[in-house]
Amino acid sequence: MPQQFEPPSGTRDFLADEFERRERAFAIIRSVFTSYGFEPLQTPAFERLDVLLGKYGDEGDKLVFKILRRGEHEATGEADLALRYDHTVPLARVAAAYGSQLPTPYKRYAMGQVWRADRPGKGRFREFVQCDLDTLGSVSPLADAESLCAQHDAVAALGVSEFTVLLNSRRVLAGLLEVFEVPAELGAGVLTSLDKLDKASQADVAAELAGRGLAEATAGELVSTLTAPDATDRIRAALKRSEAGTAGLDEVDGLLALVAGQIPAERIAFTPRLVRGLSYYTGPIWELAEAGVPGAIGSGGRYDHLIAKLGGPDVPGTGASLGVERLLMTRSAQAEGERGRLDVAVTVLGYDLAARSFALAATARSAGLRASVYLGSSGKLGRQLHWAAAHGARWCLIYGEQEREAGMVTVRNMSDGTQTPVRPDNLTAYLAAAAGLIAE
Amino acid sequence: MPQQFEPPSGTRDFLADEFERRERAFAIIRSVFTSYGFEPLQTPAFERLDVLLGKYGDEGDKLVFKILRRGEHEATGEADLALRYDHTVPLARVAAAYGSQLPTPYKRYAMGQVWRADRPGKGRFREFVQCDLDTLGSVSPLADAESLCAQHDAVAALGVSEFTVLLNSRRVLAGLLEVFEVPAELGAGVLTSLDKLDKASQADVAAELAGRGLAEATAGELVSTLTAPDATDRIRAALKRSEAGTAGLDEVDGLLALVAGQIPAERIAFTPRLVRGLSYYTGPIWELAEAGVPGAIGSGGRYDHLIAKLGGPDVPGTGASLGVERLLMTRSAQAEGERGRLDVAVTVLGYDLAARSFALAATARSAGLRASVYLGSSGKLGRQLHWAAAHGARWCLIYGEQEREAGMVTVRNMSDGTQTPVRPDNLTAYLAAAAGLIAE
Repeated sequence: MPQQFEPPSGTRDFLADEFERRERAFAIIRSVFTSYGFEPLQTPAFERLDVLLGKYGDEGDKLVFKILRRGEHEATGEADLALRYDHTVPLARVAAAYGSQLPTPYKRYAMGQVWRADRPGKGRFREFVQCDLDTLGSVSPLADAESLCAQHDAVAALGVSEFTVLLNSRRVLAGLLEVFEVPAELGAGVLTSLDKLDKASQADVAAELAGRGLAEATAGELVSTLTAPDATDRIRAALKRSEAGTAGLDEVDGLLALVAGQIPAERIAFTPRLVRGLSYYTGPIWELAEAGVPGAIGSGGRYDHLIAKLGGPDVPGTGASLGVERLLMTRSAQAEGERGRLDVAVTVLGYDLAARSFALAATARSAGLRASVYLGSSGKLGRQLHWAAAHGARWCLIYGEQEREAGMVTVRNMSDGTQTPVRPDNLTAYLAAAAGLIAE
Repeated sequence: MPQQFEPPSGTRDFLADEFERRERAFAIIRSVFTSYGFEPLQTPAFERLDVLLGKYGDEGDKLVFKILRRGEHEATGEADLALRYDHTVPLARVAAAYGSQLPTPYKRYAMGQVWRADRPGKGRFREFVQCDLDTLGSVSPLADAESLCAQHDAVAALGVSEFTVLLNSRRVLAGLLEVFEVPAELGAGVLTSLDKLDKASQADVAAELAGRGLAEATAGELVSTLTAPDATDRIRAALKRSEAGTAGLDEVDGLLALVAGQIPAERIAFTPRLVRGLSYYTGPIWELAEAGVPGAIGSGGRYDHLIAKLGGPDVPGTGASLGVERLLMTRSAQAEGERGRLDVAVTVLGYDLAARSFALAATARSAGLRASVYLGSSGKLGRQLHWAAAHGARWCLIYGEQEREAGMVTVRNMSDGTQTPVRPDNLTAYLAAAAGLIAE
């Protein structure tokens, strides 16, 4: 593609096949979320700059696309608006704005583009779809279970079969730090290092922990306990010595019991080393991992004070985010049967036959089929059949002088070349039957 | 709403009901366009600044939302990207970028937001959905007819019954100028003034024409001819004296003949005074007007050199744009039956009953219904029934100690309060039958 016609760096044009593949996936997700009683929310593509800035840390702020002031103010070079960076800050604004107009609890999903001025790379875009579901205003573990199950069901409905749910709780992590006597001031840093255990070697992580000031013996024991084959049992036992740890275990086991009927036991596991980078989580946390795919295809957890920090009311919250772009990328486009562009192609074999051909296309549409007349300049049947085939048409309606005289239209089956004369007033029924829309 | 929580000026938050009302309308439009063989195209929300600027005239350029450069370049106060202003400039870029990968002709629709820094007002937004269909690469009048009929069918499918199509051709207008001996250099200005005949008085338009330098007699004759009760007949007769006028009439009559089977004759009329503001049209032009609604609910026409002017290849084009925001605004939300948020609400009457309640909600979902458990903190049945009613649930599943002992679940019909004990393994069938999804 000539460079000047490419879409801007990190963005994509979606032509028909890709657009429709994505829309099908979005429709599946939407339908699962709706079945759980989550309702849609759509906020504007941009927010006032002060609503967004300061919410994502210094690094995040740098990745916000800012919009220049307009008119006489353009020359100032200042921005007053910025493109949506995620769906959570807009949710906090909406929760503050509409308050009692929203149902309690407020269960909403948001599925739409967000924009980040990240360095574009393989699978990393500057414009991409984020897909979140959140429940504001409920402290019930059932709300956590709903988020997790809705997310699980959506991934399964997309046809992903080999994936697992890694489940943990921030309280388990707090208990772990307590039991291993990690000094409070080192806690956050230690968790950040432990989060690397699935990528880095145990030695590297232990060294990093020591570098943070943790006693070498403690660092080594922590790493070896978390990576032992019987890590879960050892940690379960250890956590009983801590109040936070016991509460965390109860939280995890309670959630496991709630989702037991819906998430197969072999697909979900208590995973004490799961940290989740973000510090705002306050309760259960989870990630969905697909076999053979690096990184998470989904994540979630409880964040009871985040909405207030983001400028909204102080309501408890829990939610999940689905990695739709990653899911779309790893799923093969070929797996889905591609439809042609048209079901029915209609020839135009002469200026005075055109109106009749145009009406025949309308008849095909009334049978629920996608139909178009030939719009090119060739009057030759061969060329027009070639066009019909190139557009994947299942039938071509041929209407020439011969058909006009006979008061018929010739229906050509494009897959086997057979041709059947049909009376125009029988055409809807004929095509509907051929398409299997009604029984013959 | 507290001001600091409002969405930015000229933009809207779409909560569930409004979001779903809009989505239903978009789905109807999409389905009509698809049935004509138009395929979707989605381009990024922003384009490189040089792709957009200079394409919309000075006034248009001022309304473009520009995005500030990032990182070390932010301090320059310069922009390098800009939000999509319409779907036509991105179409020109795509036609240039993908060339032979696109089908010939390229029939595409685009339905998505565009952003314009216009002064917000009643029914005028800075973020709004534009809905275009275009055919590139065909000079056939059938392509014009397809655009017009697809647009007509979409409006009809949206439930608008009283609307008319005003049809004209730029060649008719050229012929009209010729017949009335309007000097060539005055042509464009004269058409701009004539375009006001549906709003301004005849005297005002005649005065404006005279002000442009047109002889007073000519101005008066032009206005009186165009507004006469038999205007169409008089103009048909007059146009025969001009070659362009004759060609224009043939074009209009050809199009009328093509669409005759699909657009009722009383709904479409040759309207010689229709000008359409935009000078890029080269052939037929049309507008759709709804009874009692000021302005057009749709428009379209042929524009054979526009794509080249916008930076794309020099291909013929024809297309139509549907005023979806206007259509959505004039259609009453009440006309559509509103659904509740839930079909099935499930009580949670004790911590140890919660897992069972959670599973009952899953069972209701498997019957194709929207279901949620109670997420609040009250253990009282009355409060939970109140919640079920507030969410519009059709049934409430009650599961308490009594039900557990009996091995049943109580299904409460929320419209009449009747309660039926149902065995959990019969629940899917019971709910599906009650919902009319399957015959009993």
